[in-house]
Amino acid sequence: MAKEKKLVEAITSMEENFAQWYTDVVKKAELVDYSSVRGCTIFRPAGYAIWENIQKKLDAKFKETGVENVYMPMFIPESLLQKEADHVEGFAPEVAWVTQGGLDPLQEKLAVRPTSETLFCEHYSHVVQSYRDLPKLYNQWCSVVRWEKTTRPFLRTMEFLWQEGHTAHATAEEASARTEQMLNVYADFCENVLAIPMIKGRKTDKEKFAGAEATYTIEALMHDGKALQSGTSHNFGDGFAKAFDIQYTDQNNKLQYAHQTSWGMTTRIIGAMIMVHGDNSGLVLPPRIAPTQIMIIPIMQKKEGVLEKAEELRQILAKQFSVKVDDSDKNPGWKYSEQEMRGIPVRVEVGPKDIEAGKCVVVRRDTREKITVAFEELETKMGEILDQMHHDMLERARAHRDAHTYVATNYDEFKDIAENKPGFIKAMWCGDEACENKIKEDLAVTSRCMPFEQEQVSDVCVCCGKPAKKLVYWGKAY
Amino acid sequence: MAKEKKLVEAITSMEENFAQWYTDVVKKAELVDYSSVRGCTIFRPAGYAIWENIQKKLDAKFKETGVENVYMPMFIPESLLQKEADHVEGFAPEVAWVTQGGLDPLQEKLAVRPTSETLFCEHYSHVVQSYRDLPKLYNQWCSVVRWEKTTRPFLRTMEFLWQEGHTAHATAEEASARTEQMLNVYADFCENVLAIPMIKGRKTDKEKFAGAEATYTIEALMHDGKALQSGTSHNFGDGFAKAFDIQYTDQNNKLQYAHQTSWGMTTRIIGAMIMVHGDNSGLVLPPRIAPTQIMIIPIMQKKEGVLEKAEELRQILAKQFSVKVDDSDKNPGWKYSEQEMRGIPVRVEVGPKDIEAGKCVVVRRDTREKITVAFEELETKMGEILDQMHHDMLERARAHRDAHTYVATNYDEFKDIAENKPGFIKAMWCGDEACENKIKEDLAVTSRCMPFEQEQVSDVCVCCGKPAKKLVYWGKAY
Repeated sequence: MAKEKKLVEAITSMEENFAQWYTDVVKKAELVDYSSVRGCTIFRPAGYAIWENIQKKLDAKFKETGVENVYMPMFIPESLLQKEADHVEGFAPEVAWVTQGGLDPLQEKLAVRPTSETLFCEHYSHVVQSYRDLPKLYNQWCSVVRWEKTTRPFLRTMEFLWQEGHTAHATAEEASARTEQMLNVYADFCENVLAIPMIKGRKTDKEKFAGAEATYTIEALMHDGKALQSGTSHNFGDGFAKAFDIQYTDQNNKLQYAHQTSWGMTTRIIGAMIMVHGDNSGLVLPPRIAPTQIMIIPIMQKKEGVLEKAEELRQILAKQFSVKVDDSDKNPGWKYSEQEMRGIPVRVEVGPKDIEAGKCVVVRRDTREKITVAFEELETKMGEILDQMHHDMLERARAHRDAHTYVATNYDEFKDIAENKPGFIKAMWCGDEACENKIKEDLAVTSRCMPFEQEQVSDVCVCCGKPAKKLVYWGKAY
Repeated sequence: MAKEKKLVEAITSMEENFAQWYTDVVKKAELVDYSSVRGCTIFRPAGYAIWENIQKKLDAKFKETGVENVYMPMFIPESLLQKEADHVEGFAPEVAWVTQGGLDPLQEKLAVRPTSETLFCEHYSHVVQSYRDLPKLYNQWCSVVRWEKTTRPFLRTMEFLWQEGHTAHATAEEASARTEQMLNVYADFCENVLAIPMIKGRKTDKEKFAGAEATYTIEALMHDGKALQSGTSHNFGDGFAKAFDIQYTDQNNKLQYAHQTSWGMTTRIIGAMIMVHGDNSGLVLPPRIAPTQIMIIPIMQKKEGVLEKAEELRQILAKQFSVKVDDSDKNPGWKYSEQEMRGIPVRVEVGPKDIEAGKCVVVRRDTREKITVAFEELETKMGEILDQMHHDMLERARAHRDAHTYVATNYDEFKDIAENKPGFIKAMWCGDEACENKIKEDLAVTSRCMPFEQEQVSDVCVCCGKPAKKLVYWGKAY
């Protein structure tokens, strides 16, 4: 048992130090490694496989809505980045610049893309001429770079992986509809696949994307009560089209500007999964995204027939699920700890006695519930167990969020919650950026979004007392 | 008919100017667009979809051999790149350097990865301790940057997409076996999926990868008689392990250096596909990689029942194939030209008369053969037609290559072939780099590989007349 303890003890408990717990989990579950490149992490097989599954599922959803994938260069000439004024102002401070190619200094420096609006716009200005060329519904999977001072695996890294969708439409209405459609794709994906409930809403002008008319967001609450922006969708109106001259002739042969959107989800969603579902034994992966869903652990595996039975069960389960057998020479307790640390949704324990009785024990990672299942029912039952686990994880996360969502009707209440009760704060806002600034300075709390589901929790702004315009979700955020 | 002509006439004929034909095809088939980033091309949906299919199929083959995917940072600190002397010497002249992050100059400049051996080695030095940790069989899909003076879409671009596999093994034998295994994976993929026959062999020391003990290659012959290196696999021995201190304790508790390999295939393989199979009507995509395999083109589509029948056939074919209906308001001739330009392997023509007769006409893109098929046989027959087409394309490419492979036994013959007969030249070599250099300087011909299937076409080196050691394939190359 000494070895098992070592593995488990190596994680700081989340109640003691949540940040350290997080760092321990990503390292001990072998999701990432650090390199000598400041602020960049290596995605190890267990970490990258999660991203591959996210890609596969999200990409299929995008394609169902007509999206096509493309690939744009990773460099953006300085002059191109500068074409849209708000956009460059927002991104310039965090750009990595290539100034030397081979042995020679460059005449014009190149930004390593922090995002690719400018490249997509330049391309659209080439290929959009007529209303017949619209809509353009493009997406790319790539990495982007933003020069950050402090970094944490998945949550904030200098280079991160993401997808960025960029669309061009004939009308403002179509662009607006696409912006909302993609936000819903993200929210549905997070709930139905990652078991993370989301608040959907609109960002305030202060928090919106550089160059956007409107930014929509999905916001999740982590186990420690901090918020995490999990996906955004931007409506650009015709602002970029004007800056990049993206015009088309409409059905009446009249020149019109295109209307555009962009939307993105990044590897930080893996951080959200960890911080919503994890526990003091390590990772808990949602069953619909886990690269390995089931680990079969043979008990007394040297006894005749045990490994054979484990392999037989593997083959049965492999028809529908992603499943492995841990037949290494470690003892079962050590294997349990590893499976728990890595967040594999269920383990199947099978030993000589089980074989005699014609059944095995299925153990859920989230609740540790032990379920005895007859061999012949295993395949059917496993589907039910994994579905139930998904459902329970989602509802647990929702209950946790709701229990940590507070209403404040005046500044004293707001301050008390912000200082003492980690979570979302629902409070009214007058619409003035000055109040957002004051709240941020006083309490390190930011406006997360103006939720689509508006309520009137009071009549006045929680900060200045003037008439309220909007309900806002506020919170401390990653 | 005027419009159709316009589309077709826009391609230069390959006999007139092969380079211009190539450029026309990649542009008119909408595979790429140029951007304001020098030397970088945009992969448009039709081009990127080919790469996505290549990824999907190759990745599955890698995983069958136990390979796991990871993701390494795109930046390499200068000091890390310099750790293996031959390696940095080979790559330094073509590296793009990041020297500024945000508003500040960097203390140490960062290379944008030209290849990632150094990062993988640094990681392996962290995670390989015991023989139990071996082998490590990692791969990543990403883009790399090499600062090139002249560039051409797919064939040579500053940034290109690829996969790079990096493995670490306990023994030299295992590393050697893996190097050959992956070369075979590439060659089989090219023949069985892309219909491109390959010569497998080993690079001479002059042409091998910077830092490798041995480089293996697959070489293809393009329609114009030039060679194209299509995939490489390198055996590093323990050279990198010594430079990066990748050591493990073996079963006898003795410290040993790991043995490593790397292997890569890039988007230039798309260029090979174009230049092996294309014709004067445009692209001809091999059926097993084409993003759209079948285009159904309704004739007199406004007549009752025609579009309905087209859609019915689409649904039948969609069970096994990737299929679309072109129901745009262009005329059929125009649609044929587009389908041919885009290289869609077959089209299905269906009009009122066909419907009355209960059949349709299937037209192969490569031979333009018209095959009349009864509706009820369409699904079965289509599988046969696409298989036959793959087979014929492969054999045609092989016949073309064989007809353009020449044997030279002395320098006069060699020179005559090099100057007058584009293709591979099989000729003996003494093993001296001086002869390779002379041939390159005199005739702009390089050694492509020492084929695994050695023959003795003469006794002496084709260049210096000294005793011959190896048969070499020579050629002008992309």
